[in-house]
Formats: sequence, structure tokens, C-alpha cells
Amino acid sequence: MKNYIKHHPWQIVEEGFDAHLNRISESLFSLGNGRMGQRANFEEKFSGDTHQGTYVAGVYYPDKTRVGWWKNGYPEYFAKVLNAPSWTSIGIKIGKHELDLATCKVSDFKRTLDMKRGLLHRSFIATLPDGKKVQVDAQRFCSMADGEVGAIRYAITPINFSASAAITLSVDADVVNKDSNYDEKFWNEVSKEAKAGLALVTAETKKTFFHVATAITYSIQVAGKVVKGKVKITKREKYADNVVTISLKKGMETVIYKYAAVLSSENHPKKKLAESAKKKLKAAAEKGFQKLLDAHVAVWANIWLKCDISIEGDVAAQQGIRFNIFQLMQTYTGDDARLNIGPKGFTGEKYGGSTYWDTEAYCLPFYLGTSDPKVARNLLVYRYKHLQRAIENAGKLGFTNGAALYPMVTMNGEECHNEWEITFEEIHRNGAIAFAIFDYIRYTGDEDYLIEYGLEVLIGISRFWSQRITFSTEKQQYVMLGVTGPNEYENNVNNNWYTSYIACWTLEYTQHALEYVRKKDTAKVTKLLAKIKFNESVETARWKDIRTKMYLGEDKQRGIYLQQDGFLDKELLTVKDLRKEDRPLNQKWSWDRILRSCFIKQADVLQGLYLFDDRFDDETIKRNFDFYEPMTVHESSLSPCVHVILASRIGYKEKAYEMYLRTSRLDLDDYNNDTEDGCHITSMAGTWMSVIKGFGGMRVKDGMVHFSPYLPDQWKSYSFRVDFRGRVLRVNVMRQKAEVQLESGEPMEIVLNGAKVQLS
Amino acid sequence: MKNYIKHHPWQIVEEGFDAHLNRISESLFSLGNGRMGQRANFEEKFSGDTHQGTYVAGVYYPDKTRVGWWKNGYPEYFAKVLNAPSWTSIGIKIGKHELDLATCKVSDFKRTLDMKRGLLHRSFIATLPDGKKVQVDAQRFCSMADGEVGAIRYAITPINFSASAAITLSVDADVVNKDSNYDEKFWNEVSKEAKAGLALVTAETKKTFFHVATAITYSIQVAGKVVKGKVKITKREKYADNVVTISLKKGMETVIYKYAAVLSSENHPKKKLAESAKKKLKAAAEKGFQKLLDAHVAVWANIWLKCDISIEGDVAAQQGIRFNIFQLMQTYTGDDARLNIGPKGFTGEKYGGSTYWDTEAYCLPFYLGTSDPKVARNLLVYRYKHLQRAIENAGKLGFTNGAALYPMVTMNGEECHNEWEITFEEIHRNGAIAFAIFDYIRYTGDEDYLIEYGLEVLIGISRFWSQRITFSTEKQQYVMLGVTGPNEYENNVNNNWYTSYIACWTLEYTQHALEYVRKKDTAKVTKLLAKIKFNESVETARWKDIRTKMYLGEDKQRGIYLQQDGFLDKELLTVKDLRKEDRPLNQKWSWDRILRSCFIKQADVLQGLYLFDDRFDDETIKRNFDFYEPMTVHESSLSPCVHVILASRIGYKEKAYEMYLRTSRLDLDDYNNDTEDGCHITSMAGTWMSVIKGFGGMRVKDGMVHFSPYLPDQWKSYSFRVDFRGRVLRVNVMRQKAEVQLESGEPMEIVLNGAKVQLS
Repeated sequence: MKNYIKHHPWQIVEEGFDAHLNRISESLFSLGNGRMGQRANFEEKFSGDTHQGTYVAGVYYPDKTRVGWWKNGYPEYFAKVLNAPSWTSIGIKIGKHELDLATCKVSDFKRTLDMKRGLLHRSFIATLPDGKKVQVDAQRFCSMADGEVGAIRYAITPINFSASAAITLSVDADVVNKDSNYDEKFWNEVSKEAKAGLALVTAETKKTFFHVATAITYSIQVAGKVVKGKVKITKREKYADNVVTISLKKGMETVIYKYAAVLSSENHPKKKLAESAKKKLKAAAEKGFQKLLDAHVAVWANIWLKCDISIEGDVAAQQGIRFNIFQLMQTYTGDDARLNIGPKGFTGEKYGGSTYWDTEAYCLPFYLGTSDPKVARNLLVYRYKHLQRAIENAGKLGFTNGAALYPMVTMNGEECHNEWEITFEEIHRNGAIAFAIFDYIRYTGDEDYLIEYGLEVLIGISRFWSQRITFSTEKQQYVMLGVTGPNEYENNVNNNWYTSYIACWTLEYTQHALEYVRKKDTAKVTKLLAKIKFNESVETARWKDIRTKMYLGEDKQRGIYLQQDGFLDKELLTVKDLRKEDRPLNQKWSWDRILRSCFIKQADVLQGLYLFDDRFDDETIKRNFDFYEPMTVHESSLSPCVHVILASRIGYKEKAYEMYLRTSRLDLDDYNNDTEDGCHITSMAGTWMSVIKGFGGMRVKDGMVHFSPYLPDQWKSYSFRVDFRGRVLRVNVMRQKAEVQLESGEPMEIVLNGAKVQLS
Repeated sequence: MKNYIKHHPWQIVEEGFDAHLNRISESLFSLGNGRMGQRANFEEKFSGDTHQGTYVAGVYYPDKTRVGWWKNGYPEYFAKVLNAPSWTSIGIKIGKHELDLATCKVSDFKRTLDMKRGLLHRSFIATLPDGKKVQVDAQRFCSMADGEVGAIRYAITPINFSASAAITLSVDADVVNKDSNYDEKFWNEVSKEAKAGLALVTAETKKTFFHVATAITYSIQVAGKVVKGKVKITKREKYADNVVTISLKKGMETVIYKYAAVLSSENHPKKKLAESAKKKLKAAAEKGFQKLLDAHVAVWANIWLKCDISIEGDVAAQQGIRFNIFQLMQTYTGDDARLNIGPKGFTGEKYGGSTYWDTEAYCLPFYLGTSDPKVARNLLVYRYKHLQRAIENAGKLGFTNGAALYPMVTMNGEECHNEWEITFEEIHRNGAIAFAIFDYIRYTGDEDYLIEYGLEVLIGISRFWSQRITFSTEKQQYVMLGVTGPNEYENNVNNNWYTSYIACWTLEYTQHALEYVRKKDTAKVTKLLAKIKFNESVETARWKDIRTKMYLGEDKQRGIYLQQDGFLDKELLTVKDLRKEDRPLNQKWSWDRILRSCFIKQADVLQGLYLFDDRFDDETIKRNFDFYEPMTVHESSLSPCVHVILASRIGYKEKAYEMYLRTSRLDLDDYNNDTEDGCHITSMAGTWMSVIKGFGGMRVKDGMVHFSPYLPDQWKSYSFRVDFRGRVLRVNVMRQKAEVQLESGEPMEIVLNGAKVQLS
């Protein structure tokens, strides 16, 4: 755990330069706009420890799988979002010396991420090896108003000298992925162009043949007037630049504006890509930095208006929650159903930028509550579009008849992950994808989604469950053998309660969906069932049989659901019994020891009680919480938020607050010592849920929104906005009272603390 | 399955050259002498598909572990026997053309492995691209009389021309391992020397710093007279040769004798290694090919005298069993307690030439029955010497107090394997190592082995079991959580019957050993227990408690032991239900499907009944066999032999013979389509057991040897020799009768078909 980020309600602030923290800050201060993203790498050269990262949404590379021991069924590759051509670099050479914070003396270093405006700001004074002192003030953003545009304002002022300087403004596609399995580079050059005022490289990913054109231009100004320097052009393999030689005058600020256009063949024809990039670049440069920034800030203002959470009395908590919202909003904007949310967003390479069940189980509620319903809908449609791949994926594992198994990790619908206990066994993900359809409809009321998309996905998933479940002659019940639940500290167990429960629920909901669609659009359902060769009487009879005869483990004496068969044979300890030096278990204990122990990475029985909380009474939740919570080590970033929500419901306020702290500043304080790899973007949605569903007690039932808010003792008050069916609701929670205001939209009725309230 | 090896009682014969089969033949025709070994690579150049393999026993390289997803506890490296400097090459260049069977027309090709004499023989006629025809006759062996010497007789006769020829006689240490994890080369050069009549390279393994000096000399003769050709010397990095230019005369046979001395720093001081190699080489060359061969053949004659199995009426079965014995005998000679038996012996790289539990469970009985007891004893001492490493290994997994976990795969006692479900969980191997001590003592009567070595190992293993077993409050019994049994088609199961049973047995036998040693040598036991800080009252009380309260799964209704918890929840099918195109399962089914299915790679309940067969009656064995055998797919080469033995005991003769066929010609007929990687050396011991313990019904009980032989219907008769406590017994089994003869040693009493018989 670290504590170097200064607390501030709207900003992330780093003061003073510590090279050891640089990779962490590069993650924390990352920028993105849903289309492209950028770690907070310095513009000028940095020869110290850095993790360069530029990303273009949806552009990935299938890296050949690396395993120790191949097992049949493993996918051939891991599709990863790859490090894309870099556009942010501004090299500064003064005399013989390159400006490089690893070799200069640095003072007055300050890095700020202004979350309100989506602007990265950095300033410092550097003393070059020859004693020349310069002051630098750098700002940049990835435009939320135009996802293909980035802009930098880089101002440099000589403090104690005048001299000529060579400014290198480049595009570099000769980049590497640190996580490349076989140390390959992933890009080939298609074309390049460089002339005074332009550098452009079009590069193509190997194997996947995505094209990305990255074009830059610039304007160098002193006191608002353009300075024309001598321009030298360099082109080499995958690289193009302009080196502009100018004179720096003592005490005078020279401002370098660098503009970038980053276009991918996902959105433009390949043939015209370079031309389109130049057009986009020209338009951006003509607008200029300030106008681009204004448009960008306006988008952010609108976002915050819908989804801000403000907390009085706790700046750290305030900063934490806004950071979580900010990162989510700049990762995924929801306007493209081909895109999704990687666990690290645009902040790092880890987990390959691919899609996990995190999206459905954690991110979907966030976007439902903060954005236009089409954003959440696009997340669902993303999976709909992958349905055939999910059917193929199940086919590779021996399933037939249109059974669909969505992948654990994917970019294009194909499975990428390669650990058998996860890839093949962590099938609860399929349930999360079914649940997301239900959750979306519950929230938006858009039940007709079932007609166009939902039913077909649900049938595919139900067909999978139907084949994956085994009838035990011994038990005369259906069992679910060989699974890994969300608690990944158990592998290959039988009858994981959560997985079995969500499987049965899927069968039930699919039946409901089938009936709904038949009622609403008979022609559609007839056509669909014919297309997918659905043998309705046989298939639904089996579903019903499974639902009625499913084995769901319980310990009646304790009144709890059993995480899996044999769980009670373990030595039942609590986290308090662990020595500090044994934590985190996954770094200190060998895998078998973790598996044998009762300790839980993420309590999946509780996950189930959270998802289906209207089916369980408080006492049941309390008994299960009391049993499983003390064994939970929360070594998944997805874990604590569920505990906040359940603890809030059953009145465990202290526990809820403890868990909230754990989730909300996970990255800012580098809780797990891994922020340098990138931020935990998907679990940030869990932090948002902690406030809204936990402290705020928000639920949607039968088309009505319910709140039962309470104020953590540590806060003075808090307030949040949620988007619900065309309205923006503002919930203010103070010590003595809680109120809900309708900020925009039609009048409506809500339920506050169990009582109906009319809002207008 | 293939069928190209000609049947012959004493020889492995290949007729005609098929380049597609070359890698398989390179495995089958491999040579070794316990110290060094060699795949049957051609002496002359071969540019076609080949897997070059030269091995020196005990010389290994720790290849950095490669995994997809690292798990805490994985070892840093996989120690593998590495491809060693090559000494067999004899390059033949006639005019402009190199003799190379990939580019010549080949006729009259014949390759023979004479198992009686341990001689590889190859002859062919090749037509060079320019029409020159040569006849070649090549013989070679690795001397069983001197494990550091190899010799080749390579005779070449021009059929239709006379010409000069350049003969390249080299040592080449610039070799690669095909299975290198990171495509590294594993050798550095220490020194080299080349002059007329000598090429020598001393090479050092990276990281492990073993030195191997490989020296060659030669003599070229026509009609018994030495021919002196012009000699050209080449030295380059890790390589030295003599190129001798001679005249080949039409119709005249030129014989090239090449001698090699291969010395390792395991057996000689590094400083003198090159000198010692030259000395050894000189002595070998002075003896000459024939005398070296005579000495070698004499050793083989002696071996066969002790352990031959002859079968009348089935040449294929005869060839198969002798091939199994031959390979085992040339892999491990038992004179060096630092060595062991790799699953592929000297026939390939796969499995890294490391030691597995195969040694104790399969190979030990073979060496007990065929060799001096010191050979088996050395196999035990090998593990004794690794005891501290086994304690460290257990320590890495969190075990304390001198608990020892022997590795799944090892070269020097450290664990090498890196799949959690095997490395950490396949702990039954520890039981096999304890059982081997018992088995050795039962066979030899050498109970005093417990005093010097056995007890300490047993206590280490018992301490491991004692900590690895968990007390289930729920069951009020001890359970064994999270294991993988010998049936590797189940992973991370609870209460694998075999593992739990052998664990309890170990605790019991250790108690017995403790009492024995105390009675025989009180001082010794007192000293040992003090050294290992053995808290006798506490530790043995826990052992006893475990033994009396251990949970061992049973299905009382079926009268069977349960392979593991939950086994009966599976869909209970039989192998007959499988479609042919689904076999072998491990190539056709994804791993999760295999795990969920009832199908068994190797039936571990049956393995337990085999090991402890005097504790179970025929009916119990029959019930378990009837239940598990039909589900067993035998996709482990170690599986069928156990079925031969049990089926023989319960009178299932047809089943026994079917299983025997499966084990005995596994490699010769390339049953599993993998012989090209090397032969299944360790499972060959299982083939031997199939005859001796299966058809022959041999058991040792209370110091007496028992036979209850029967004749498979497909044979006319068979006969085998076994070594037992200083005697060689010959058992002849004919249609009407079976007899046991004492071939050498003191008179003794045996039990034949339940009746005592006096032999003299």
C-alpha cells in the first residue's frame, strides 16, 4: 500500500518526482476516450523505468498461446489489445543534451489529473547536465468530443540561458508489448509520410490485419505567434518525424502544440485511412488546442451531471469514487457494440484488454445507472454478436445442438484463456451473461430486447447448462460436476452452489423469455425456433426437470448454502487466524495449500445472494454472510463491493465501510502492489455499486426504483445522481435525513425507505 | 499402430528404408549401457527427418520453467537430461557428393538390433546422385563392459567405381535439445584438441557446470591392413574433427573403426577429464573392435542368463518381452546410486530423462527379480540421498517439522514439474517411495536396510502424510483433500482411495520400522530420532489416530472402494460406449470433459489392490475389477500390466492376455503413435511384471516365493528366470504342467500352486 497521491476532491495529484513510482503514476494518470487511450508516459524522452502504452480500442493481436503442458481444447492464441503506434512523444534537445528526467535534476515536479475536465497536467523544472535550467508545463487530453483526436500543449521556458533547441515530433509504430509471449513485434508498416508539418505512419497488425493510421502535426508559438524553425525530416521503418530547430530565449515561454489523429480500419476503409487521418488532423489543428479542449471539457461536464457522487467529510473517499467513475467513463463510452471493457482499460497491457464476465456482473449496472440505456444495450449486443462463436467454443469442448459457452476471455468471441481450471470450468460466466439480459430489462423496462436479441442468447446458454448438468443416479438429482466458481481459490469442484443456482435461474428465465416473445411476436419466435432447430417440448421439459431436481448443497444445521461439495470437510478457520506474513495468500502459499484451505478469494455464495437478493430474506443473508465473510481474503478486486452491498442490507455498517475503503482507493493507494501494470477498471464499477446499491440501498423491482440509504458514520453527507428511465435522480443523504430529487425528466414515483414518494 | 518391425525372437528388424519411419526406428534401435546412450541416428550425414540424441547419464540442465500462468510454488526450472556431444558421426564424401540417405537412392536397407549381443547393425546399398553405388555395413555398440566406451565398425564398398573419399570423423558438442523451453543451447566449450588420430571436445553444461570429455579416434583398414590417408584437421567452436582422404577401390571393402571415450565429471576430476578420456580412448583402440565387442557380448550373455523370458508359439510376444527386458537392462545397470531410470531412458528427450514414481512402482520389482539386490538397493539409496531435498520441497509447500515430499519429477531431488494438479497434488508418489522400501525388504530379506537408510525416509514421508491429512469436524474422521491420484484423469479430488490407503499404510509400516530398528540397534535409533527432533509420543499417537479414523470411501452396496468423493455422481459408462473416433480421449476430448467423465487413465483403486493384494480376497478384487476395469482407457502406459496381474489372479485369462498384448509391443508397434519421441522405458518393467506376477503368479510372502502359473491359450509354453536371494529360479510353464527349477544357488523351499516344493 502506498500513500503518495495527494487528496483532492476533483484531482489526482502527485508532487515531487520519484522515478520508482513512475510506472504506478503512468497507470493512475492514464487518459482515454473510449476509442483510444494512453498511459501517462512523458512527452519528452525518459530513459528511466517506464511502461510505454498507447492503445486503440478494438485493435488486437492473437499472440500464440504459451503453456508448460498442452491440454487438448486449449485455444491457439491469446488475443490482446496491443501497444499501438505512439503519438505523444515530443523530444527536446538543447545543445548536446536531451531533456530526460532520468538524467536531469528535477524540481517543482507536479502531475495532476483533472478529472472534471479530463486533462493531464504536468509541470517541472529540470536542470540539464550542463546546468541549463528549463521550466516545462505540459497538458494533454484524448478528446471525448472526437475519439480520434489527441492534443498536447507543451510549454518550455529557459530559466537561465538562451539556446537553440531541436524539437522532435514523431509517430512511432516500432513499439513492443511487454507481455508478448514470444518477444515478437506485432506491427508491420503499410505506409508512411513525412514532410514539414506532418508525420504519418499507417501500420498493420500481423495476423489480424487491422490498419491504424497515426498522423501528427504541430504548431510552435511564442507569445501567441507561430515560430517557423528549420525542419529536418526522418523516416525509417515504422517511424516518421519532424525535427524542428528553434531558438529558446531566456525567460520566454515557447509553446509546442502537438495534434494527433488516430484512425483505425475498424471505422474507415483501409484504402482511405491515411487520407482520412490527414483530413481529421487538419481539422483538429485548425480548431486549435483551446477549442478542442473546450469541446472535450463540455462532454465531461455532461457526464458528471449524470453520474457524480459527492461525499462531504472525507476527501480521500471523494477522490476515490470520482477516480473510479472517471476511469470507467473514459474507458467505455458505449457508442460501438463491437467494443467492450478490458480489466485494465487503456491503463496497461495486463489481461490483454480483453472482455471478461466483469463486464456483465460489474460494469453493466454502472452504465445502466449513469448512461443512456443504449450504452448498456450495446454491451449486451456485443455478446449477441458473439453468439455463433460461443456456440463454436462450446462445440470445441464437445457440446452440441447450439449450446453456447461464452469465453472466459475474449476479443472477438473466441476463447483466449488457457488454464483448464478456468478456461473450461469457470462456466458461471455464462450465467452472468444471461443475468445481464435480465438486469438490463429490469432496469430499463426494455423487455422487447428479448425479441430481437435476448431470447436467442438465452436459449444458447440454457442449452449449454442442459448438457453440462449430469443426472446422478446415486442422488436421483442433477449435479454440476467439475466447475470453478467465481471463488477461484477452489478448482474443479462439484456442485458449486453459485454456478448451479445461476444455471437453474437461466433455465427459468429462458422459459419466461420464450413465453414473453411468443406472446409479443409469434412470427418472430416461430422463425427463430426453426432457425436454431429448437425442439421445444423435449428441451423445455428437460429444463423443467433440471430445475425441479437440481441438487443445491445446503447445511441445514447452519442454515447456509454450501459453496461446493465437501466444503465442510475443510479446517474451518477465519482470516483472523492468518499470520500477516502469509498475506496475500496467492503470493505466499503454494496453490495446493490455497485450494485445500477454507479461504475464499471472492465469496460466490454471497455473490449469488447479491444477484438474487429479492429471493432471500435478511436472516438467510446474515447466516451466510456470517459464515463466509470471515473466510474471505478479497484477493479479487471484484470481491469487496459485494460485501458492502450485503453488509449494508443486513445492517453491518462498520463492515460495509471497511469493505468500501478496500475497493474505492484500491489503485490510488496501490493496495495490491500492482497498479504499475494498470488500474483495475472493471472492479471500479463495483466501487460505484458499493455507494449506490450499498450505502444508497438502490434496487429496481417491478419497474419501481427503491432507495434505503444510510450515512456511514465517517461521512458528513453524500449525494449521488443516477439515470433511470429518462430521469436523472439525485439522492442526498445527510445525518438526519435522506431525500431524492428529480433533476430532470418526467414526474415519477419511487420508494424511499419502504414508502412510496412522488417526485416531480 | 504400426506393423513394420519384422518378428524375430532375438532381433528387432527393419527391412527397407522409409524415411517417414526414421524417428520411430531411431527410438526403437537405441543403444545404451547405463552410463551413456544413443538414439539410432545414422553415422553418415542424414538431411532428412531425424531426432539426434546422445545422452550421458546424470548430466542434466535446469531449463527455465515455461508456463502460461505462473502459480506460487512452481519450481524455477525443469532439469532435463540434455543432448550430449555427439560421437557417432562418420561423414562420407565421395567426389562432390556426400553419402546421405535423404538424397541417395537406397536399396537393400536393413537395420537390426541384436538384443542377445546388444549390437546395432545396419546395411544398405546407396546410389549417389552421380550414379556411384556403395555398399555399407555398419555396426555399433555402447560397451556394457566399460560404460565410457563406444565403438563403431563402418564398412564401405564401392560397387561400380573407384574414387577418393573424404571421411569426416568428428566430435560435435554444438548440439541442441529439441525440447529446450527457450531455444537455448545448453553447452559451453571448455577445451578441444584435434590432431591426426584424435578429436576431443570437453564441454560444460551451462548453470550445472558438468564437464563431459568426448574423445574419438579411428583406424581405417582394407583387408585387415591399416590405411593411412591424408588428414585434415578442423576445429571450431565446440567441434573438432579429422577429415581423412583415402582411396576407395571398386569391390574392395574399406573398414572404418571409430572408437569413442565419453567421460563425465561425475566420475572423474574435471582437471584431468580430457587426459583421462584420451587414456581411456587409447586403451579401447588398442583392444580393437572385436575384443571390445566380445567383452560387451559376454556381459549381455550373463544378463540374459538371469532374466530371460522365452515364449513358445508366439514370436511377436517373444520379441516384445525381450525388447522390454533389453531396453531396461541397457538403461540402468544399478552400479551408481546417483542414477535412476528416466521414462524414455536413452531413447529420447521427452520427460527430460528425469525420475518419476515409475521407478519405485514399476522398475524396482523388475530389478529385484533380475539383478543383484544391490541394484534395487541403489534405487532406494538414490531417494535416501534426496531426503533433505524432499524436506525442502515440502517446506516450499508450507510443510514443517521434517515432512518430506518427494518430487514428481526430479534429477537432483528438487521438484521440476510445473502443473499444479500434478506437482503439488499427485502426492501418492510419496507412498510409492515408502512402499518400495517394504517391497525391497520383502523380496531380499534385507530388513537391516531400515537401520541405515529406510527408517529416516519413512519418518519423513509419514510426517508429510500426518500434516497433509485434515481432520473433518463434519465427518469426525480424517480426510485427504485436494489430491490427484495415479488416475490423472481426475484432478484435485477429495479422498482418493488409493492415496489415502497408501498414506495410512505408510504410517503403519513406519511404526513397524521404528520398532524393528529400536530392537536391532537402540543406539542408532536414539541418535536418529534426536537428529530429526522426533517427538515420538506425540507424532506416533497422531499416526495411530489417523490410521484408526481415516475416511476411506466405500460403496457398501456394490462392495467397492470409491476412487474418490463424488465418483458415483458421474454418468457411469463403459469404454464400450465410446465411439472409436473419440479415442484416445486425451487427444480428442477437452480436459474438462475427461475430468467430468467416469473414464479412467489408470485405475488407482486397482493399483492399490495390486500393491496390497494379500490384504484383499478374490471376491473383493473381482468386484472392484468388474466395476473399474470397464471404465479404464489405459491411456497411461503404466496401466495395462496391473490389469494383467489382477485379471490373472481372479481367473480372467482372456482379459489378462488382451492387456498383455497392449503392454508388451507398445513401442514396437507404436501403439500410441509416440514412439518417435522415445520408448516407454519405465512401463517396460510392467510388461515383465505381467509375465512374472501375472501369468507366473509370483508372490513373495514371509520370505517364501510363491508361484501359481498358468499358460495363456495363445502360447505353447513359456519359461522365465528370476533371481531370488542368491538363487536363479527357472519356471517352465507348459500346457499340462508347470515346474520350477533351481538353476543356481543353495537348495530352497518354494510354494507352487499352494503346495510347498523343495528345490535343489
